[in-house]
Amino acid sequence: MFTSGGSFDQSLPDRFTTTSLQDQHLACLSKTWLPTGGLAQADKEDGHSKLVRAGYLRQSHPGVFHMLPLGLRMQEKLEKLIDKHMLSVGASKVSLSSLSSQALWERTKRLEAYGPELFRLNDRKDAPLLLAPTHEEEITTLVAKLVTSYKNLPLRLYQIGRKYRDELRPRQGVLRSREFLMKDLYTFDASVDAALQSYEEVRAAYSRLFDELKIPYVVAEASSGDIGGDLSHEYHLPSSMGEDMVISCNSCSYVANEELAVAKPPSQDQSAAKARVWRGVSKDRTFLVNVWYPNVPGLSESDINTHAIKTVVPGLDSSMEDSIAFWTQDSTKESGSSQKVLKLVNVVDRRMSPTISESIKGGSHPQLLPVGSNLDVSSIKIETITSSEGGQPINALRIRDGDNCTHCESGKLKVEKAVELGHTFHLGTRYSKPLGANVQMRENVMAPMQMGCHGIGVSRIIGAVANHLADEKGLNWPRAIAPFEVVVIPGRGVQDEDAHEIYDQLVGEKQEVDVVLDDRAESFPWKMKDADTVGHPIIVLLGRKWLSDRICEVQCRRLKVKEDVAFDELPVYINNLLSQL
Amino acid sequence: MFTSGGSFDQSLPDRFTTTSLQDQHLACLSKTWLPTGGLAQADKEDGHSKLVRAGYLRQSHPGVFHMLPLGLRMQEKLEKLIDKHMLSVGASKVSLSSLSSQALWERTKRLEAYGPELFRLNDRKDAPLLLAPTHEEEITTLVAKLVTSYKNLPLRLYQIGRKYRDELRPRQGVLRSREFLMKDLYTFDASVDAALQSYEEVRAAYSRLFDELKIPYVVAEASSGDIGGDLSHEYHLPSSMGEDMVISCNSCSYVANEELAVAKPPSQDQSAAKARVWRGVSKDRTFLVNVWYPNVPGLSESDINTHAIKTVVPGLDSSMEDSIAFWTQDSTKESGSSQKVLKLVNVVDRRMSPTISESIKGGSHPQLLPVGSNLDVSSIKIETITSSEGGQPINALRIRDGDNCTHCESGKLKVEKAVELGHTFHLGTRYSKPLGANVQMRENVMAPMQMGCHGIGVSRIIGAVANHLADEKGLNWPRAIAPFEVVVIPGRGVQDEDAHEIYDQLVGEKQEVDVVLDDRAESFPWKMKDADTVGHPIIVLLGRKWLSDRICEVQCRRLKVKEDVAFDELPVYINNLLSQL
Repeated sequence: MFTSGGSFDQSLPDRFTTTSLQDQHLACLSKTWLPTGGLAQADKEDGHSKLVRAGYLRQSHPGVFHMLPLGLRMQEKLEKLIDKHMLSVGASKVSLSSLSSQALWERTKRLEAYGPELFRLNDRKDAPLLLAPTHEEEITTLVAKLVTSYKNLPLRLYQIGRKYRDELRPRQGVLRSREFLMKDLYTFDASVDAALQSYEEVRAAYSRLFDELKIPYVVAEASSGDIGGDLSHEYHLPSSMGEDMVISCNSCSYVANEELAVAKPPSQDQSAAKARVWRGVSKDRTFLVNVWYPNVPGLSESDINTHAIKTVVPGLDSSMEDSIAFWTQDSTKESGSSQKVLKLVNVVDRRMSPTISESIKGGSHPQLLPVGSNLDVSSIKIETITSSEGGQPINALRIRDGDNCTHCESGKLKVEKAVELGHTFHLGTRYSKPLGANVQMRENVMAPMQMGCHGIGVSRIIGAVANHLADEKGLNWPRAIAPFEVVVIPGRGVQDEDAHEIYDQLVGEKQEVDVVLDDRAESFPWKMKDADTVGHPIIVLLGRKWLSDRICEVQCRRLKVKEDVAFDELPVYINNLLSQL
Repeated sequence: MFTSGGSFDQSLPDRFTTTSLQDQHLACLSKTWLPTGGLAQADKEDGHSKLVRAGYLRQSHPGVFHMLPLGLRMQEKLEKLIDKHMLSVGASKVSLSSLSSQALWERTKRLEAYGPELFRLNDRKDAPLLLAPTHEEEITTLVAKLVTSYKNLPLRLYQIGRKYRDELRPRQGVLRSREFLMKDLYTFDASVDAALQSYEEVRAAYSRLFDELKIPYVVAEASSGDIGGDLSHEYHLPSSMGEDMVISCNSCSYVANEELAVAKPPSQDQSAAKARVWRGVSKDRTFLVNVWYPNVPGLSESDINTHAIKTVVPGLDSSMEDSIAFWTQDSTKESGSSQKVLKLVNVVDRRMSPTISESIKGGSHPQLLPVGSNLDVSSIKIETITSSEGGQPINALRIRDGDNCTHCESGKLKVEKAVELGHTFHLGTRYSKPLGANVQMRENVMAPMQMGCHGIGVSRIIGAVANHLADEKGLNWPRAIAPFEVVVIPGRGVQDEDAHEIYDQLVGEKQEVDVVLDDRAESFPWKMKDADTVGHPIIVLLGRKWLSDRICEVQCRRLKVKEDVAFDELPVYINNLLSQL
């Protein structure tokens, strides 16, 4: 049914996507609502503040945003870019409802797993609904009804729509918001092999898509978390504003996210004789967790790899900020009232000397209990973990810059902050099984479909790219999503006809360049400053040299270009710049 | 700032809206997901069932729908059509958040007014939110922040997005759903005159838009209800499936919706000597309402004009289905326990004879209380209304076919069911005042902006047009929104190259016709039936005559066309048909 790079044209013919000829011959900034420049620039302004100041969007409620015309135009370009690459893997576009039912999510056991991040509501008949944060349940139910034979597979369906997640701390504007736009693609195959083939095709399309955005990105091996499944990759934009960590090797191609990354274990002869302790509490508040790690300069609590600790202590609550106090108080109370058995779980990093390990196991180490605790060590049950289930010594510390790569001989690992822009998952039968999405394979043989899901954060790309490319003068955009590619700013004394002539010259006969004319009733310097703030990739100024010699000044901040260009040479010159953006 | 028919081009250049050349040269049905024909045709199938059966959409939850590729393609065409007409009145496109806050809606007193139709929810911090059913509050707040001077007006902003209304009885699919797509335009002006000018410009654009859809529509004077304001028109598609009533004159141009419509009062000499009673209860359950109307053949309870009754009895609850039983039981209980004063309100239609009016006023009419009531009339307070506040006699009956028009001498009124597709409101300062959306008019003089709002039901148009144009063979669509304009179906033995040649011939050099090739692995008769079900406006069949003489069969069900057409004549012939659709 599908051929890769297939030719079903889901996009509408031109007649439906452009306005009639008399309307489209000239795009002017005066004709749309651009409330820019209303805010003073702050000292350390992030991309989000710049987006607000330049008139792209506005916050309506905490973590919830209105898109203004400039932002919406950019968003639409990004959507069209995504459409193109989804079409290249033969995907069909749908639009699923935002309202979903809690009963449906109970069938996949995700109602509880998602917890307070789910926006829940009841309708007037008290039926429990939710605002979908993702659509595996809905699409699997839909496909289960409509697809019954392996002959209808492979099937690839995607949408670009609003998603809802009640973030505890929404921040940085559209980078982490509560109502946001996502592209989600779901693949359905008859066998694991076919599903993995789909997975690779989508990965290739993602690479082409991010290549076209011309932003640096890394593809990291990832864990699949609540979504389920067992093959997963994340697409990250390295950024100091990021909330994720990506680990990459400087020698081989190894890249992984923090949860999954591994480094070569430290050699035996570095065993540390002094210990520090990081303390945590179990989710059910019944035991204290001590993580023992070397007391050497440069190491601190923030180096503890809580993901690794959780693999040996599954009940650990790593999100409690004041865990010691809580446990001390709580357990003291508990022991008085209900005779609950107190327990201490020690996790000992592989770097610790055998002497220390022994004193921990034996209950004699002085740091076993928090300072100020009045508990009697001998009354507490002590458990000590020094190796994983597979018998590997514990590595309790996060990977740090300079750790050795396990995938090659000489590589050193680099750790950097990043923003996740996309994610691919092979889901297997995680959803098709509980939701009964089966196809007939042979006579009397039914099998659950093999699924994949593949997301791209549309709103988030806007926020991340804003952060990544902005400089002190304002925003900057890749050509692929800039609201306009070129702005023409006529100075004082320049005739309208001249501005229109430049406009037509730049747009070209094939209408390949997206040009806009700044015809607003503002001063020349104001418009130049505004063009920098908004981040038009290329600015064409018609100043005094235009009046005397028909020469424009072409500016491109990203390429550090400021050049006089004659009228006839404009198209070639501009196209050359655009090809680099 | 705006010129009517202005030229700011918000639509993206072709490069962003079409796929690369190698992808778009051929649109084939095999390349997208079209789960059609899965349901057997029912006897009395409505448009919604046809939409489901043809693969346009599917219900996900009661009153909530997923759009499938075919439906989404149509929806996108409709959106582009709306974009074009919004651009023609200089409107800028935005995209407002679906999440809104209850606190904001309290400021305009609409939180309570909307009642149970509002989907309400609390976030994890217990902040009360809602899913916006319309966006006056949000847009007014946004504009209040960003527009401060009359110099920035007029301002016209619109969006096309999802809206939420928790309908008591969602029905007929997307005709009355709980999550639906709407276009909403908001206008902001500095004076009433300017606002009325905006109102007229939008009305003209609406007429052009509905004209282009080529469906019959009526524009009715309307009441503005909860939205507020004092000038309002509704755009209706007459339809037996409609839930609204439109009254129009067969002689003059008078059209109004039922709430607002007036007919010439009946002449005096028709006064009826026999009475029937319609009974209702007050919202607070404290009084019974008797509406007295003539006991003549052809009149029934459904002829009672509850809108008219409410203007003289504001507390009437017209939605209670078994009002008599409720009041009888309720009041009986109440009178025992709390000594509440029982009250009876009589509304007497102008057609009743004076004798009857007197017996009602005097408490002697035998029908004053419901059959089976054990109450003593003499213990009940009786109030009788025979004229409106302005002194006009009461007309308790709905307008009926053949009533006399008040706007012309000879006209007779026609009453027909209709579906509301659009609505225009002049809002005045209904929202700008409470939300502080003021502009500076002169030095030290601020004034609230004069607003208008103008909706179009995007999902509803799809449902209404489906109902309106469907016949026993399947759906039918106007050219403007059909998923494709022409489908080419090659029969057995026809070479791929021939089908492609026909395709290219039809699309034309300017790509003016939206053609799709049915290249699916199904039989010729199956494809023809499917084409009728889906409702492609024009079907081009390549059968035996094609093989022998390069002659196609062109079918158009709406125009009752079935014609042999030679290859060379196809473009002219097809364009001629399309111009009528």
